Amino acid sequence: MSILVVGSVAFDTIDSPQGRRERCLGGAATYFALSASYFTDVRVIGVVGEDFTAQEEAVLTRRGVDTKGLEHTSGKSFHWTGSYLKSLNEAQTLNTELNVFATFSPKIPAAYKDSDFLFLANIDPVLQSSVRQQMPKVRMVCGDTMNYWITGHRENLLKVLVGLDALLINDGEAKLLADNSNLVLAARKILAMGPKALIVKHGEYGSTAFFSEQAFGGAVDGKALMPFRAPALPLDQVVDPTGAGDSFAGGFFGYLASQPEVTLQTFKHAMFYGGVMGSFAVQRFGTERVQSLTREEIDQRFALFRELSHLD
Amino acid sequence: MSILVVGSVAFDTIDSPQGRRERCLGGAATYFALSASYFTDVRVIGVVGEDFTAQEEAVLTRRGVDTKGLEHTSGKSFHWTGSYLKSLNEAQTLNTELNVFATFSPKIPAAYKDSDFLFLANIDPVLQSSVRQQMPKVRMVCGDTMNYWITGHRENLLKVLVGLDALLINDGEAKLLADNSNLVLAARKILAMGPKALIVKHGEYGSTAFFSEQAFGGAVDGKALMPFRAPALPLDQVVDPTGAGDSFAGGFFGYLASQPEVTLQTFKHAMFYGGVMGSFAVQRFGTERVQSLTREEIDQRFALFRELSHLD
Repeated sequence: MSILVVGSVAFDTIDSPQGRRERCLGGAATYFALSASYFTDVRVIGVVGEDFTAQEEAVLTRRGVDTKGLEHTSGKSFHWTGSYLKSLNEAQTLNTELNVFATFSPKIPAAYKDSDFLFLANIDPVLQSSVRQQMPKVRMVCGDTMNYWITGHRENLLKVLVGLDALLINDGEAKLLADNSNLVLAARKILAMGPKALIVKHGEYGSTAFFSEQAFGGAVDGKALMPFRAPALPLDQVVDPTGAGDSFAGGFFGYLASQPEVTLQTFKHAMFYGGVMGSFAVQRFGTERVQSLTREEIDQRFALFRELSHLD
Repeated sequence: MSILVVGSVAFDTIDSPQGRRERCLGGAATYFALSASYFTDVRVIGVVGEDFTAQEEAVLTRRGVDTKGLEHTSGKSFHWTGSYLKSLNEAQTLNTELNVFATFSPKIPAAYKDSDFLFLANIDPVLQSSVRQQMPKVRMVCGDTMNYWITGHRENLLKVLVGLDALLINDGEAKLLADNSNLVLAARKILAMGPKALIVKHGEYGSTAFFSEQAFGGAVDGKALMPFRAPALPLDQVVDPTGAGDSFAGGFFGYLASQPEVTLQTFKHAMFYGGVMGSFAVQRFGTERVQSLTREEIDQRFALFRELSHLD
């Protein structure tokens, strides 16, 4: 099954304890697409400026990502500058130049209309809704958001949440969205806003999925759905956390799209694959690691994740 | 197999968002002993004052805990006052009255000398060493500590670490002890200090075990040991986090002591049981919940933990 992703394609300038990288290829849609490309066909909707050259585009197309929906326009690409010098757990944004992204209006090529899965990466919820409406036949829709939209664009965001099969956010975002510091209560409130499932990402501690009664018919084998927790891999070096969440989402959704059916079982496996792709992403600067993997490496790490957390 | 625990038996006054409790029975050895009592025989070494009545002692003896080693002396029992009003993740200590605990000198009754397992709860490392030396034949020794001993009594603490089969501490303590903010590197440094295993407790995110090359002969089935991560149960209400770590330790060590052999497999199961007992402890004030469980309830929750984290 093919996935359509809409989101940012950008340049990132990053300071980490391991050094500095200027203008490396980044953006949520880029991380997502590269990560998902190991599992299924991926199509990208985004906008880039004149500084986005054939070399950058080749990073995506080499991985088989369809870039027909990547609009090239005059001006400069989105450029984010951030630092992890204070903490590897939270990026400190030093500068955000939206550039061509400021007036982005997603247009979906006719050839993309038959996409089966849709991922709404972290962008203005008005754009997320617009893309969602242009894809009425899509089978499953997942989305991401961030504090900026939660606090300042809440009404628009709530319209997006209603139609989501799964929302993927981190602990802080979940607690902010629900205005509740207990994660279980926060999850309950968020599920009441519409998403059938909520995946909360805990960084180095893994992720937890919560399900509404609309997920998987409300029960599996006669049992009510309980939360599911997937581990993260303890790493002795985190080089650059940028894009870990988008790589998680790409692994999660890419794996799901590769399966004949979305069941509770494939959903759980997908969370493990999400953790696997996130763990690769942070081991090098930018998208370096998620450009250059093999499916064998991914499945080996999947086996590690299982060994890390399974009882005999 | 029987476990000997040395540590505090105390009264706690606790403020939590759920209310206030004055002078409820607490102390690390109390939580540990009650929690371990569901799995094996437990003996306690500690000291209490005149305010510790037959009613408090009966809480332990009703659960079959042997209190011969509980020294009664003149004066008042250790009394801790803390608050979780600012955060449920970290206790704010408002007052510590050591009272009879200030001059505690552990004496081990002859009848305790044949104990198979020893748990050194969070007390002055000099006392931990003294008890360890009085128990030369013990088969397995685990221990706990806290920031106060790590920063102010480091040399004494290092002497304790050398002889431990497992050290159980939380993330902050591990990073402080190793002076390293990366958990994997911190674990490596701590294992080099002597413990064969390190269990780092992550609160609501579960726990991770790291193993030195001295653990389980350095390899199991020809494979080097990798870390192991056990989940925690997402709870919609945390009433009182006091004693969660000690209850974890009691479940962990109690289960291990109940098994015919300490293997990597029983160690992993023990971590799950640790999480189970910690999750019960926080659901009521003080030791209320860990006083009144059944083994059936514990095993039901163990099954939940497995379902929460296992792939089919």
